[in-house]
This record gives sequence, C-alpha cells and structure tokens, in this order.
Amino acid sequence: MSANVPTDICFSFSGLMQRGGNTGPHKDGWGVTFYEGKGCRSFKDPQPSAHSPIAELVTKYPMKSEAVVCHIRQANSGGVCLENTHPFTRQMWGKNWTYAHNGQLKGFKETLPITLHLPIGTTDSEHAFCWILDQLHYQFGEQQPTAKVLFSFIATLTSKIDELGVANIIITDGESLFAYCANNLHWITRRAPFGKASLIDAEVAVDFHTETTPNDIVTVIATQPLTDDEIWHKMSAGQWQLFCLGESINCSTD
Amino acid sequence: MSANVPTDICFSFSGLMQRGGNTGPHKDGWGVTFYEGKGCRSFKDPQPSAHSPIAELVTKYPMKSEAVVCHIRQANSGGVCLENTHPFTRQMWGKNWTYAHNGQLKGFKETLPITLHLPIGTTDSEHAFCWILDQLHYQFGEQQPTAKVLFSFIATLTSKIDELGVANIIITDGESLFAYCANNLHWITRRAPFGKASLIDAEVAVDFHTETTPNDIVTVIATQPLTDDEIWHKMSAGQWQLFCLGESINCSTD
Repeated sequence: MSANVPTDICFSFSGLMQRGGNTGPHKDGWGVTFYEGKGCRSFKDPQPSAHSPIAELVTKYPMKSEAVVCHIRQANSGGVCLENTHPFTRQMWGKNWTYAHNGQLKGFKETLPITLHLPIGTTDSEHAFCWILDQLHYQFGEQQPTAKVLFSFIATLTSKIDELGVANIIITDGESLFAYCANNLHWITRRAPFGKASLIDAEVAVDFHTETTPNDIVTVIATQPLTDDEIWHKMSAGQWQLFCLGESINCSTD
Repeated sequence: MSANVPTDICFSFSGLMQRGGNTGPHKDGWGVTFYEGKGCRSFKDPQPSAHSPIAELVTKYPMKSEAVVCHIRQANSGGVCLENTHPFTRQMWGKNWTYAHNGQLKGFKETLPITLHLPIGTTDSEHAFCWILDQLHYQFGEQQPTAKVLFSFIATLTSKIDELGVANIIITDGESLFAYCANNLHWITRRAPFGKASLIDAEVAVDFHTETTPNDIVTVIATQPLTDDEIWHKMSAGQWQLFCLGESINCSTD
C-alpha cells in the first residue's frame, strides 16, 4: 500500500490473511511492515496468517502508515522458519528498505553472487534482495540517487532476477514503492468520490466514503485483486511501476 | 534474556511493561526482539507499553526464544517516534544484531564518527550502535571472530561510549548476549531446583517449577530487578558480562 495520508490496512489485511491457510495455500508464514516516517515496524509469524494471534491483532489494531508491505508465504526455497519469512528489511543510505518476493528462482546462488549484504536465511528471495543491495552499493556508493534514477536501475536488476524463474517484487523505502510484475500483480488507486468495496476472501465490506477525507489517495497493489466489486489494473509481464503518496508515478519520461 | 531452551518472557514482560507509563516513567515507547534460530522478530510501539495493545499481546501470546531484548524508553535524545524506538536491529556477517541502550550521551556525533552504518533516527543510542558496527567492520572485516574475541573488543567500544555519559548496553546476535554496565544492571540465573517468584510491578507470581524442566537454565538481565523475592546480582560500573544458553560465560581468562 502507498498512501498520501497515514492509512490503516485493516480492511485489505482482513482479506489477505485468509489466503494464508484458509482461502489460499500460502500457509508457510506471513509478515507485514508498516512505515511511520523513516521508522518501520514488522509483524511476522512463521505460522499461517489465518490462524495467527498476531495477524488477528493487525486486523483489529489500526496502525496508520503511508507505506505498508505484506506477504503471505508458500514455501518453495528454504524451510518454514522465522528467518525465511518475508518481508525482509535492511538499512542503506540511512533508510529502512523493505522487500517482498512472490515466485521462485533457479541457479540464483551462481547467477547472483553476493559479497557485502549476506543473507541470514536460505530463501531465493532474501538472496535476491541482498544481491540488489550489493548492486546498489556498487552503482551508487554512499549517495542515494533520485527516485527515478534509483528505481529505473532497480528495474533492470529485478528483470535480471526474473530471468531465473518468477519474480514479482515489491521494494520500498517508505516514500517510494516499487512494483515489478513477472506474471501476477494488480493494483487499484482509490480516491474521491469513494465508494463501497467487498472482500473476496472474507465476508467484509467497507464504505470508504465514511472512512476517508476527500483528499485521501490510497493505492493497493496485490498479487490477485482483494475485492470483487472494484476494477483493478492488471500489470503485464516485465512491467514495473513506481508509487508515491498513493499515486502511480510515470518514470518512463526520465 | 538468554536461555538454553526456547523460553517465553510473558512473566518478566508483564512486570517490565508496567514501568512504561504506570509504575515507571519510561513511557516514550517500547520494543522487544525475539530470536528464533537466526531469525528474529520485533514488536515496537512509540506509545507507552503500559497502555499498548501490542504489549498486551506480547504478555499473553507465549513466543518461545533463546534470546530476547526488551526496552522501555524515557526519551532524552531524539523525539518520540518509531525510528527512535529501541531495540535496534541490523545485519552483519549474515546475522541479526540487536542492541538496546539505557542512559544518555553528550558530544556523540563528534566523538563517534560514522561512515558506513548510517543512523535512521536521531537518538544518541542508535548513533552509538552504528558506530560500534562501523568499528567491528574496520577491526574484523568480512569475517566474524570468536565470541570471546568479538565481545572483548565490543567491551572496549562500550567503555568508550560510556565516557560520553551513561551507557548501559545490551547487544546480542541471538547466540551470545553481551551486557555492559555503566551504573544500573542486574541479572539472575534461574535453574533447578526452581522456585517461586513475584513481580515488583504487577500482582503476578509464578512457580517456575511447574513451567520448566530440570535442565532449563534461564538468565534475565534488567536495569532494576523485576522480582522482590529472589536474589539478583548487581553489576558494577564498567563491568561487562557475556551470556550464552542461559549462563554467564567467563571471558576474562581468554
């Protein structure tokens, strides 16, 4: 999620968490990272989200954030344990960088050598994230470039990762939110006039008109749409987009 | 906490959380980091722990861990916000390193210059942690030394930090837990035969005999004792200790 005002994700998360062991097979752990300014906090559990007391807290305790990354895991590379649970957060350039990956990679250790940012767990996903951070360090050194320069370069990296299998990837520093689509990513931007929406995975509906102000702009990006009565944009294979303060940013004109 | 078996901290945390805005003045946020193997997860809130729904979850949902770091904050350097909330976790040598600081420092920006591990927030505490990580990188490069060599060196760093004010410091990688005492640190090791204990800050008592096995060894380190019917060791100014699998390790003979 990317938003221009601190926004909670209780509605979206109520649907997503059901896919972790109830309406979906992604039962091998889950995590969510909320940004508040430069700070962030993560909630993680290697247990299925549909049955996790921590996930239940996240649905009920409205934490308001301008950027949120959620992940529910279906393990294919690396065992089910805390260190293999997304999203992964690392520090660079005095910021928290958070990353989540959907898909699987082959031959990643050989093709994506790592020297600086060593993985802690054993997933292909964290390995690819560490490789990205290494490449950013080699390319830009100690100085973070502009968002457009940075994420255009990250797009070339995610594209290379995607060649090793399937890599739908989300990366954010809490300001900009980058999304790379390998095969499955959908997004929706909600703004005034707000309407109603109904979750696919739970019997929950919301009238955003009563929850928002006219100036709010909120984008949600998800592997599959979370609601069945709104129009979601489907991203195409190899496409990437950058979101900031709730809106899609055009980077192709740089 | 350091333990030789995965142990929950529900009892100790029930007392500590009261000091964050109820029985104590440390109302400017709180956090706790639980290790499970190489992975860790943190729960943080810039709100007072005594009134935090997240803290309530931590007291009621037994997460079992061999190393835990908790912190309740009384702000003196840096505003009350998420990025200034302890404990701080960073990655080095393929491990998660977690750090918490009690005290305050003066002139830290000039005396402790940082080049590699840039702080995200504005606290003296995180700055000192980043300085420690920089020094570890310069001293040991890409290879982590033995625990005794590493923590003996860290002790020289914390001693230097302590010269800038007050620095009671806890650092762990989930295996070894290092404690440096500036003026206030107490610890207790519980092992068979286990007895009863009563919290100072809440009307809660526990009979550890019914909660443990005879082989369990659990050490709790705290600024001030958490129970009033057990004998806690008081550390002396400038003293440091290393704990591993619940026991104090003698490093002075190295």
